[in-house]
Amino acid sequence: MDINKSVSEALKNVKAKNPLVHHITNYVTVNDCANVVLAIGGSPVMADDISEVEDMVSIASSLVLNIGTLNSRTIESMIKAGKKANELKIPVILDPVGAGATPFRTETALKIINSVKLAVIRGNSSEIKTISGITAKTKGVDAGKETLSKEEALKLGKNVAEELSEKLGSVIAITGKTDIVSYKNKTYFIENGHKMLSKITGTGCMCTSLIGSYLGANENYHLSAIAGIVSMGIAGELAYNIISKRHGGSGNFKIELLDAIYNLSSSNIIDRAQIR
Amino acid sequence: MDINKSVSEALKNVKAKNPLVHHITNYVTVNDCANVVLAIGGSPVMADDISEVEDMVSIASSLVLNIGTLNSRTIESMIKAGKKANELKIPVILDPVGAGATPFRTETALKIINSVKLAVIRGNSSEIKTISGITAKTKGVDAGKETLSKEEALKLGKNVAEELSEKLGSVIAITGKTDIVSYKNKTYFIENGHKMLSKITGTGCMCTSLIGSYLGANENYHLSAIAGIVSMGIAGELAYNIISKRHGGSGNFKIELLDAIYNLSSSNIIDRAQIR
Amino acid sequence: MDINKSVSEALKNVKAKNPLVHHITNYVTVNDCANVVLAIGGSPVMADDISEVEDMVSIASSLVLNIGTLNSRTIESMIKAGKKANELKIPVILDPVGAGATPFRTETALKIINSVKLAVIRGNSSEIKTISGITAKTKGVDAGKETLSKEEALKLGKNVAEELSEKLGSVIAITGKTDIVSYKNKTYFIENGHKMLSKITGTGCMCTSLIGSYLGANENYHLSAIAGIVSMGIAGELAYNIISKRHGGSGNFKIELLDAIYNLSSSNIIDRAQIR
Repeated sequence: MDINKSVSEALKNVKAKNPLVHHITNYVTVNDCANVVLAIGGSPVMADDISEVEDMVSIASSLVLNIGTLNSRTIESMIKAGKKANELKIPVILDPVGAGATPFRTETALKIINSVKLAVIRGNSSEIKTISGITAKTKGVDAGKETLSKEEALKLGKNVAEELSEKLGSVIAITGKTDIVSYKNKTYFIENGHKMLSKITGTGCMCTSLIGSYLGANENYHLSAIAGIVSMGIAGELAYNIISKRHGGSGNFKIELLDAIYNLSSSNIIDRAQIR
Repeated sequence: MDINKSVSEALKNVKAKNPLVHHITNYVTVNDCANVVLAIGGSPVMADDISEVEDMVSIASSLVLNIGTLNSRTIESMIKAGKKANELKIPVILDPVGAGATPFRTETALKIINSVKLAVIRGNSSEIKTISGITAKTKGVDAGKETLSKEEALKLGKNVAEELSEKLGSVIAITGKTDIVSYKNKTYFIENGHKMLSKITGTGCMCTSLIGSYLGANENYHLSAIAGIVSMGIAGELAYNIISKRHGGSGNFKIELLDAIYNLSSSNIIDRAQIR
Repeated sequence: MDINKSVSEALKNVKAKNPLVHHITNYVTVNDCANVVLAIGGSPVMADDISEVEDMVSIASSLVLNIGTLNSRTIESMIKAGKKANELKIPVILDPVGAGATPFRTETALKIINSVKLAVIRGNSSEIKTISGITAKTKGVDAGKETLSKEEALKLGKNVAEELSEKLGSVIAITGKTDIVSYKNKTYFIENGHKMLSKITGTGCMCTSLIGSYLGANENYHLSAIAGIVSMGIAGELAYNIISKRHGGSGNFKIELLDAIYNLSSSNIIDRAQIR
């Protein structure tokens, strides 16, 4: 079966199974994450107190850990919930928001990675490179970025993702203009999306929550990561098409983005997904 | 005076008195709760630190307690604020979000109920049944749901609500396809609303905040609960009418819902309320 | 150069420099604050744990401290981040949300003011008066408000702002129907805005975040405060123009407000700013 068709089947599974997606996430984008899970066909639940995270994850289909506004209280909850999910074979996705920006974030991301077996890690290029422990090298790469061709940069990203995937046994997704989604030595590149997605807060978090929704309804982690990213990308394109006709800005874009995810169909995916 | 007319008068009181509605609530839907209170004509204030909740509730017209993302810090604040509100005869509404989903939530809901005299408790069927302590029976009821006619299910809900109301002296509101609002042995059923309301997060919380707004401007707690639920239901119908014409999704629905509450008029209520 | 032209240049600087604006803020309006910073051309980052606030502010261009939902954990973080910002000459703006409403808020606002050198303080009339320590006198002023002409009230506000500015060395912005922005003995009055801005939550917070964005890209603190307030005011006027044509409410107003900030142009400012 071709990959676009597989993604469209994965979407049908989300709508059919209505997975409960437990989030321990930040207070900036949490409302958007909940709404995007509902829009794609899942059910979100947000609970972060250490007294209940094990009970909550036990009734969930997947667990989303997002360190956007981490603090000492919620880090412990994340690890406790993650371990319980591992025990129950419930897939866990980590969004290491801002890893590399402060030592606290980098250390926390690594602490979670070392404590919890992750189905998927989704981050941007610098977050994933930080986690890979190649910060020093990364700086070199970033500095030299302008001299790298697009294909050279993707090849570098692919190497980082594949090595980290091999090491952790997790799907590694690096999102950006071209998304890189690797599981061990198999990598897909995705070309969907629109630069307007960077003009509203939380599109990264929402993408992670979409992957969490797919993980809760599909066996294949690699496919789930691809499906979440493609869904966000296509929704971004559709939303931009609508607002560009009326000279809209980021306010209307966000609303149309949620509508596009709500209305996302198998044929949208089959027609528009650009995965190679 | 017929009940639709009474509800429309209650709405006028909110707009005339502009009640200050103190919330101790979750971080998922808090922004929507604040906006819905403003839209109906109240003034929201959110404050949860134990050092200030007594002072804040003292200047408020009503208090909303919502355990959506409860944690040990805010539970103590809820109880302290609730006791102060009782002392000052300020009405308190509890939204026991997720009671039954984890023992921590169930215990917290019961702890609040045992510590604070509540004007209204609003929850869905399983939350209210959990509070009633009939979890075991509830499971049986749920299992047997398919064999119950709609009227039989409503009769069961009515019994649960009336018994709990009698026991606690609070108005009990069970929201769902048909809403059940009981005070002691008097029950109203409400048929407003649209299933699209379940496709965005926070419509339950927002409904609670609307009831909180009515409580802050009206003496009659039973009427306030009915008015909040009817307002949300009618707004859902009006919002769906608008988005269905343009194939909109959950993003636009949420925006139109807030607009509908903002523009809600006495004649909307008199024409559309379905209360029996 | 005339002031409207200066504000339009300040806007260009934000778009050119894309300042990173570190926020320690409340969980009610945080998403809107992030989106408004992105819309004007900055980059928001929200981080409040004491383990990372110094590292985060060190890579930021400005710091926004907002006590909307203050608690003991975040107050310490605010002061630590503020002191670090002072050390690094990064401008800090304080939004003393609710100062005067509870002693805890008043004391916290004063604690921050006494610990951190502030570039700007933005609040409403009662918040700024509370900080000025003229609560008692303020009550008298409020009581007598109806007998004061508009010009007398503005003169009083100007005196409060100028005295506080002289004392603290900070720009003092009192927002309201007419905004008052003082630095030492120089005061500007701004007449932009629309009363609909008071019908959604967070327009004060968003205004503070806009000023934070201007501070991160401009040397002149007084100009930055004026520019943030004018931007919010003009966006409110433009948003209201759009929704009034279709009988919209507060839901659509909020969306159009964000769009208006996103699309705000130099010519919008030059044509519409009402600063004297």
